[in-house]
Amino acid sequence: MAETLRADEKIALIKEQLQEVLKPEIIEDVIKQQDRPLVIYWGTATTGRPHCGYFVPMVKIAHFLKAGCKVKILLADIHGFLDNLKAPIELVQFRAEYYKFVTTALLRSVNVPIERIEFVLGSSYQLSGKYTMDLFRLSSVVTEHDAKKAGAEVVKQVENATLSGLIYPLMQALDEEHLGVDAQFGGVDQRKIFTLAAEQLPKVGYKERAHLMNPMVPGLAGGKMSSSDPDSKIDVLETADGVRKKLKKAHAAPKEVEGNGIISFVEYVLLPVSALKSGGQGRFVVERKEGEPLVYTDIESLKKDYEADILMPQLLKPAATNALIELLKPIQEEYLRTQAWIDIEKKAYPPPEIKKKEKKVKDRGSRFPGAAKDVEAKADGHVEGKAKDQVDLAADAEDAMRKLDVRANGTG
Amino acid sequence: MAETLRADEKIALIKEQLQEVLKPEIIEDVIKQQDRPLVIYWGTATTGRPHCGYFVPMVKIAHFLKAGCKVKILLADIHGFLDNLKAPIELVQFRAEYYKFVTTALLRSVNVPIERIEFVLGSSYQLSGKYTMDLFRLSSVVTEHDAKKAGAEVVKQVENATLSGLIYPLMQALDEEHLGVDAQFGGVDQRKIFTLAAEQLPKVGYKERAHLMNPMVPGLAGGKMSSSDPDSKIDVLETADGVRKKLKKAHAAPKEVEGNGIISFVEYVLLPVSALKSGGQGRFVVERKEGEPLVYTDIESLKKDYEADILMPQLLKPAATNALIELLKPIQEEYLRTQAWIDIEKKAYPPPEIKKKEKKVKDRGSRFPGAAKDVEAKADGHVEGKAKDQVDLAADAEDAMRKLDVRANGTG
Repeated sequence: MAETLRADEKIALIKEQLQEVLKPEIIEDVIKQQDRPLVIYWGTATTGRPHCGYFVPMVKIAHFLKAGCKVKILLADIHGFLDNLKAPIELVQFRAEYYKFVTTALLRSVNVPIERIEFVLGSSYQLSGKYTMDLFRLSSVVTEHDAKKAGAEVVKQVENATLSGLIYPLMQALDEEHLGVDAQFGGVDQRKIFTLAAEQLPKVGYKERAHLMNPMVPGLAGGKMSSSDPDSKIDVLETADGVRKKLKKAHAAPKEVEGNGIISFVEYVLLPVSALKSGGQGRFVVERKEGEPLVYTDIESLKKDYEADILMPQLLKPAATNALIELLKPIQEEYLRTQAWIDIEKKAYPPPEIKKKEKKVKDRGSRFPGAAKDVEAKADGHVEGKAKDQVDLAADAEDAMRKLDVRANGTG
Repeated sequence: MAETLRADEKIALIKEQLQEVLKPEIIEDVIKQQDRPLVIYWGTATTGRPHCGYFVPMVKIAHFLKAGCKVKILLADIHGFLDNLKAPIELVQFRAEYYKFVTTALLRSVNVPIERIEFVLGSSYQLSGKYTMDLFRLSSVVTEHDAKKAGAEVVKQVENATLSGLIYPLMQALDEEHLGVDAQFGGVDQRKIFTLAAEQLPKVGYKERAHLMNPMVPGLAGGKMSSSDPDSKIDVLETADGVRKKLKKAHAAPKEVEGNGIISFVEYVLLPVSALKSGGQGRFVVERKEGEPLVYTDIESLKKDYEADILMPQLLKPAATNALIELLKPIQEEYLRTQAWIDIEKKAYPPPEIKKKEKKVKDRGSRFPGAAKDVEAKADGHVEGKAKDQVDLAADAEDAMRKLDVRANGTG
């Protein structure tokens, strides 16, 4: 499939729907002059549960794969537990496994070749001597001020911010070198981190990479998705009924296109997914009780109809609901027939009920199921309770590395 | 020798002349209850050339050794080149070797057992997976604010301070755990870093250590020693004539004891060294053209005489000069008969003249002697010139590790 695309078609597909590309000439050089697959890195911290917002970058990754790129997905397990301790170290490795299942199932369902995708655990190289040396070297050329500025949009700006928040932007820059990529992809909220990487890597002897940025897409429920409001997120494993209920409640003012999460979802997920699946033009079909269905192959005509109130919220919502249920179906089917995935889901997101069965479990080490009687996993995946510190940071470095399953060859 | 000291004598010797000890009960527990050698760590960045100011902590290290302690001297090579790039990475390893020679020669000359001293290169463990894991863990509990505060007195507070300055205090805390010590020793300017270590290590599962602090001692020339004024420092290899010339110029106002660098040197180096050498009471003898020599066995009577102008600057200076020349003699003699030390001195502090011989040297890699035609080593050991960046930070992580001679077993 990818083989049939010409170089400029590949480049167009790579750039499709992106808000901004820094140093596109790097991409063109690789594809046109060097005539080899572009290597792109996208990182995600394996903290909460993947929800439908995850589909937005996935669509682009599908584009990259279809365009013949090699995509490295960094499952940032170390970030996962360090970043405001969103995920306990006990769980972060299971969550990385869970992310892998979701991602491959999704990409398979949209008919893109997944053999050129590579999952890399952060802990497999971010604890190596070479990486640490580079982190020290980079930290001696990047100012506090620049590190802080770089993380301003991504790292929570709190009064008592920890030092780790200043270190992440540097790691994200070094990842480009250590993953051996040509370009990094992310949301436009990463722009300052990307700029830091572009500016600072050459100071420690490494080349500047291209940066591909997706626009910020409002959540399905409208506005920014919030981990404290479970209704603002639709889990990848959400039932059809759950999807219906949540989308019914979603905010979608008539005639208002701006900030409309459902329209954005059509634009950045449903239409492109439909295009990927069909191998041709995307289609979004709105059934009507009276009259012919409204069929959209581009977002502009949909937006125009919405503004004109031809496509009313009460028409858009069920259409989006059905399309989303359709999108989730093959993923959920794969989940149900994959025992390893089912098993890892239980380990990665232990149900809160565990707390209630206070039966005597021997606490061997501090594996989560042992310590679990003193902690409770919340909806977004973080834990609370007496044993929180223990499962958050691990007892010591060795314990942490054991929990991340760091192998000797990953730290050489 | 140490074997003949009782536990409370050991403790008294360990604390002698210190300004402050945090958690002395840790020290007492090890020596009295556990009845084993106290393990103490002292760190020094191998940047400039060791000068006479280096003798101040050395006297305490001699006390520790005499009191039966095990002393680990951290030759902080990574700090050495990262910290404001004071020392180019090309040279930092040679400088670490040079420091070893100076330290052992000095300690040997004051008759303390040196078999319980251990030199550890920072790069031998600070690039390991476990250390990096701990650095990440610690960085996620220490706030930016606390890291900054900790380094306030030690790390240069400049407008464009680099991130590395916030990382050092965390490393210095982790060093206590990774070197496996009971206590850390340093100047009282380290107090905030020590406090950070004491407060934060327990948060990542490690025990709090004791902290031993030397007072800040004014430089021999009076006031703080400055790297830009070569006369403010007397090198360990300074000739007798050089010592005479520099001490003659030293600031020493009559009757003023406060801030008097020469009196401080008598107090913190010459008297205790004399005591160590004799195995009994220290003696500082001031010859006079007329009358009996003035003989001091304690600093208080010396200070009293100085305030009363009985011990005038013109009497004190030559006496201190002779004692210092005497102190340097065995070290310099050992230097002259140790070819390896002479060789490493040349490599660690290449003479500025190298710049003049612009003969065609093949630049194999970027070893300093190759790149040296484009850089010039300054008096304090830092370099300037076109190739500064190259020798400062190395070309990449591998190059840096090669230059620090990091072995595989040091990064496991």
